Amino acid sequence: MPSEKINRTMLCDFYELTMGNGYFCKGYKDRITYFDVFFRSVPDGGGFAIAAGLEQIVDYIKDLHFDEEDIAYLRGRKIFSEDFLDYLKTFRFTGDIWAVPEGTPVFPREPLITVRAPAIEAQLIETYLLLSINHQSLIATKANRICRAAEGRTVLEFGSRRAQGADGAILGARAAYIGGCAGTACTISDQKYGVYAGGTMAHSWVQMFDSQYEAFKAYCECYPDNPTLLVDTYNTLKSGVPDAIRVFNEVLKPRGLTKCGIRLDSGDMAYLTQKARKMLDDAGWTDCKISVSNALDEYIIQDLLRQGAKIDMFGVGERLITARSEPVFGGVYKLAAVERADGTIEPKIKISENTAKITNPHFKKLYRFFGNDTGKAIADYLCVHDETVDDSKDLTIFDPEATWKEKTVYNFTAKELQVPVFKNGELVYDLPTLPEIKRYCAEQVDTLWDEVKRFDNPHTYYVDLSKKLWDIRYNLLKQKSE
Amino acid sequence: MPSEKINRTMLCDFYELTMGNGYFCKGYKDRITYFDVFFRSVPDGGGFAIAAGLEQIVDYIKDLHFDEEDIAYLRGRKIFSEDFLDYLKTFRFTGDIWAVPEGTPVFPREPLITVRAPAIEAQLIETYLLLSINHQSLIATKANRICRAAEGRTVLEFGSRRAQGADGAILGARAAYIGGCAGTACTISDQKYGVYAGGTMAHSWVQMFDSQYEAFKAYCECYPDNPTLLVDTYNTLKSGVPDAIRVFNEVLKPRGLTKCGIRLDSGDMAYLTQKARKMLDDAGWTDCKISVSNALDEYIIQDLLRQGAKIDMFGVGERLITARSEPVFGGVYKLAAVERADGTIEPKIKISENTAKITNPHFKKLYRFFGNDTGKAIADYLCVHDETVDDSKDLTIFDPEATWKEKTVYNFTAKELQVPVFKNGELVYDLPTLPEIKRYCAEQVDTLWDEVKRFDNPHTYYVDLSKKLWDIRYNLLKQKSE
Repeated sequence: MPSEKINRTMLCDFYELTMGNGYFCKGYKDRITYFDVFFRSVPDGGGFAIAAGLEQIVDYIKDLHFDEEDIAYLRGRKIFSEDFLDYLKTFRFTGDIWAVPEGTPVFPREPLITVRAPAIEAQLIETYLLLSINHQSLIATKANRICRAAEGRTVLEFGSRRAQGADGAILGARAAYIGGCAGTACTISDQKYGVYAGGTMAHSWVQMFDSQYEAFKAYCECYPDNPTLLVDTYNTLKSGVPDAIRVFNEVLKPRGLTKCGIRLDSGDMAYLTQKARKMLDDAGWTDCKISVSNALDEYIIQDLLRQGAKIDMFGVGERLITARSEPVFGGVYKLAAVERADGTIEPKIKISENTAKITNPHFKKLYRFFGNDTGKAIADYLCVHDETVDDSKDLTIFDPEATWKEKTVYNFTAKELQVPVFKNGELVYDLPTLPEIKRYCAEQVDTLWDEVKRFDNPHTYYVDLSKKLWDIRYNLLKQKSE
Repeated sequence: MPSEKINRTMLCDFYELTMGNGYFCKGYKDRITYFDVFFRSVPDGGGFAIAAGLEQIVDYIKDLHFDEEDIAYLRGRKIFSEDFLDYLKTFRFTGDIWAVPEGTPVFPREPLITVRAPAIEAQLIETYLLLSINHQSLIATKANRICRAAEGRTVLEFGSRRAQGADGAILGARAAYIGGCAGTACTISDQKYGVYAGGTMAHSWVQMFDSQYEAFKAYCECYPDNPTLLVDTYNTLKSGVPDAIRVFNEVLKPRGLTKCGIRLDSGDMAYLTQKARKMLDDAGWTDCKISVSNALDEYIIQDLLRQGAKIDMFGVGERLITARSEPVFGGVYKLAAVERADGTIEPKIKISENTAKITNPHFKKLYRFFGNDTGKAIADYLCVHDETVDDSKDLTIFDPEATWKEKTVYNFTAKELQVPVFKNGELVYDLPTLPEIKRYCAEQVDTLWDEVKRFDNPHTYYVDLSKKLWDIRYNLLKQKSE
C-alpha cells in the first residue's frame, strides 16, 4: 500500500457485503447473532499457541464506518439495494465482544473471541478479526518457540525484508515481541509500538571502504559505545575477527571501553563461533558478544547450542517473520447461536464431511483450571454461558471425543479466560501496554507443564466440554444429520 | 496497523540509519553507489519466478521523506549526530532506478532492480524495496503455478483472512491477479486496484435460517442473476445439491434464468463434484457452474482434474495468499559498485563461506534472447553496463559455473529487460495498468519452453555472463580471497 490512509472497513470479503444486503432485504438486519473465532490445530505440531492481535481489532472496531467513496464504489457494483447503501452511511458497531487477552496460551477449538451483534455487523467484521488474530497469533506462537529454544539468550526479530507486506513486518515485529523477542530491526515498530529496534551494519558498509579494517575502524569511531562489527564479508576467521580485534584494540581500548560485539551471517555457526570466542578471549575481549543470523529457527538454535556454539544473541529473520515452517494460523469465524425475538438463545452448529470442521455450538464460557498446589494449568473447560464452575468443590470432567475418559479435578482455581472488550459498541477494556502483554505471556507460558511445551509430540492439553454443552452439541449433530 | 497514515520511509531496518549516519560522519554522503536486487532460487523448485511489486516501490520512492515526528524519534535514540538529523529534514531520493517490469518471468541472480544513488539514499531504501519485491513476486509466482494447474479454468484468490497482515491480503490479491487469478474475495483490492472482487455466502448464511432450503431461497430471491449457493453446510449430496436444485426450479426457472452456481468447501472434491454435476445436469441445470474451495494448491488442482473432477472454478485461499509451501522469496540487496571521484565505476563483490551467496559485481545490463523462428526465450545474458549485444551476429555464450559448456546463439533478438524508472530522482516510467501487467505476464510466460514451466525438476534456463563480466568477477574473487 502507498502510505495513504485506507479504510479497513473495506478490508472485508465481498460475501460479507452480499450477505449483509441479503439480511437487510430479508428483515434479518437486527437479528442478534453469536460468532466465535477459534482455530483447529497448533502450527508446527506444537502443544499450544499464543493469542495476539486484539489491540488492532479494537482499533478497527472503534473506526468501523463506510466513507462516501466506499458507498459510491458499492453502488457501482450494481447489486446492492439503495436502502442498504443508505443504512451503511451511519453503520457502526453496536454489539458486544469478549476476548482472551493477548499473550494468553490457547488451545484448539477454544473461542479466542466471541461476538454478539446484529447479523450484518457480526458478519462484516469476519475477515479483519480473522486476519488480525491469524497473523499475530501465528508470529507470537513461532517467536515463543524460537525464544524457548534460545534458553534465555537474546533473540531479535530481523525479518522485515522478507515479510509478506508492510503490516507483516510492522505488526509481525509486535507479535514477535509478545512471544518473547527482545527487539527488532524494524525502525517503525519501535517508533509506533515501542518494540526496541537495533542494528549496526550490512555487508555493504564493509564493501564501501577500501579495506575491511578501515570499514571497522570508521564504524567504531562513529559508535564507540558498544559497536557490533559484521565479520563475514570476506573471511570470518582469517580476516574478519582479526580485523575486529585490531580495531577494538586501537579505538576502544585507549578509551577504556570494553563493550562490543561481532556478528556472523554465514558459514558453520557452531565451529566459527567457538573459534571466534577463543580468539576474542585470548585477545582480552571477553565482554565481546557474539551474534549470529542466517536462516535460524528453533531447531537450528537448539542444535547449535547442543554442539557447543558460543552465541550470545540470535537475529532471526525469514523463518520467524513468515513462520516459514507453517505460515498459516487457521483461525475461523463460525456462527454459534442466534437470538429469537423473545430473547431465547438458539444454538447453531455447522456440520461437515470433514469431522474436524464440526463446530461447538452456543454462547459459551471458557475456564482455565489452575492447581492450587502447583500453580500449573490443569485443563480448560468450555460450558454454556449460564453455567458457573464452583471451584470449591471437586469436578469430574471428560474428554469430548472419548467420553469414557474421565478425570476429577480438585483443589483448583477456575479462571474465566475471556474478558469483556466491547459492550453495546463501547470499549470497556483497558488495553494493556505491550511490555505488560509480553510479561503476561511469559508468566502464563510458565503455568504450562513442560510436557505441553515440547516442540515435537507434546502432551495434548485437556480442553473439555461441560455435560450440558456436550449434550446440546450431540443432539444438534443427530438432528442435522438425519 | 490502525487505518492511520504511516510514513513508510520509517519502515527501514535500523542499521540503514546507523550506516547512513556513519556515511554522513565519514564524508561518504555523496558517494555514488550501485545496488542490485536479486534472488537466489525459485520458490517450490520452480523454473522461473514472476517479478511484481514495482508500482508500490514507485509510490514509496516518490514519497520518501522524514516528518518532524520521525526526526524527533531518531533524536530520542541518542546516537545520531545533529548534522545528520538536520540533513534528514530535506532528505529525498535523487538517484536513478532501473527495473524489470512487473509480470516479467525472471531467474535467479538477475538484477530485478538496480539503484544508482548517493550511499545514504541507496542504503535507506533497502528494506522497503526488498519487502515489496519479495512479497508480491512470491505471490505472483505461486498464483501463476496454481493458474497453470487449473488449465484455463477460473481461479479466484480467497485468502484475505489467512494473510499475514492487511497488506498481505490487499497487495497479495493484486499480485495473484498479475500471476493469473481472475479475481479475489477482497473488497478493498477491487476498490483500490481494480482486482475484481466477488463472493456470495458463508455457512453462517445457511445456518441463520430455519432450514437450508429457506436460506437458499432467500438468497436466490435477493440475487436471481447468477446466484452461487454453498451446498456443504449439512450434507452436500443428501440435502445441499437437492435443496439448490429445488430453489433454482422455484425461483430461477419461472423467470427464465439459467445462470447459477454451487460451491463446495469440504469433502472429497473429485467424487462430490462428479455426483453433483450429474444431479444438476439430470435436473436440467447444465449451465450451473461448480466452484470448489478448501486447502487447494497447484498439486491438488492437478490431481482433481486428473481424477475427472467436474469443476469450473477454484477458490484458492491460504496456500496462495501465504505461498504456504514456501512462504519466502529470498530477494537480497547487494552493493555492486561505487563511483570514484573521477567518475570511474569500481566493481564490488561480496564473498561468503556459502558460495551461493557470492554476488555478481559491477553496474550491469540484462538481456533476454528470443529465437526469431520460435519467438521463444533462449537465454538471458548479463554483461557490463558499457557492453552491447549485436544480435545481427552469432554469439557464443557459456555457463558461468561450468565454463567449458558453451552454446552459440544465432537468428535471435536481444531485448534489454530493465527499463529506466527514476532518473535523478524523477519518475521517468509510465506505469502500466494492472490488466496490462496481467496480459504482459501471460504473454511472457508463453515465451518460455514447457520444460522450464514444469512444476518439479524443470529445465534450468540459461543465465550467462559476458566474458568481460565473468573476468571481472573471477579477478575480484581471487584478489579478495587471498
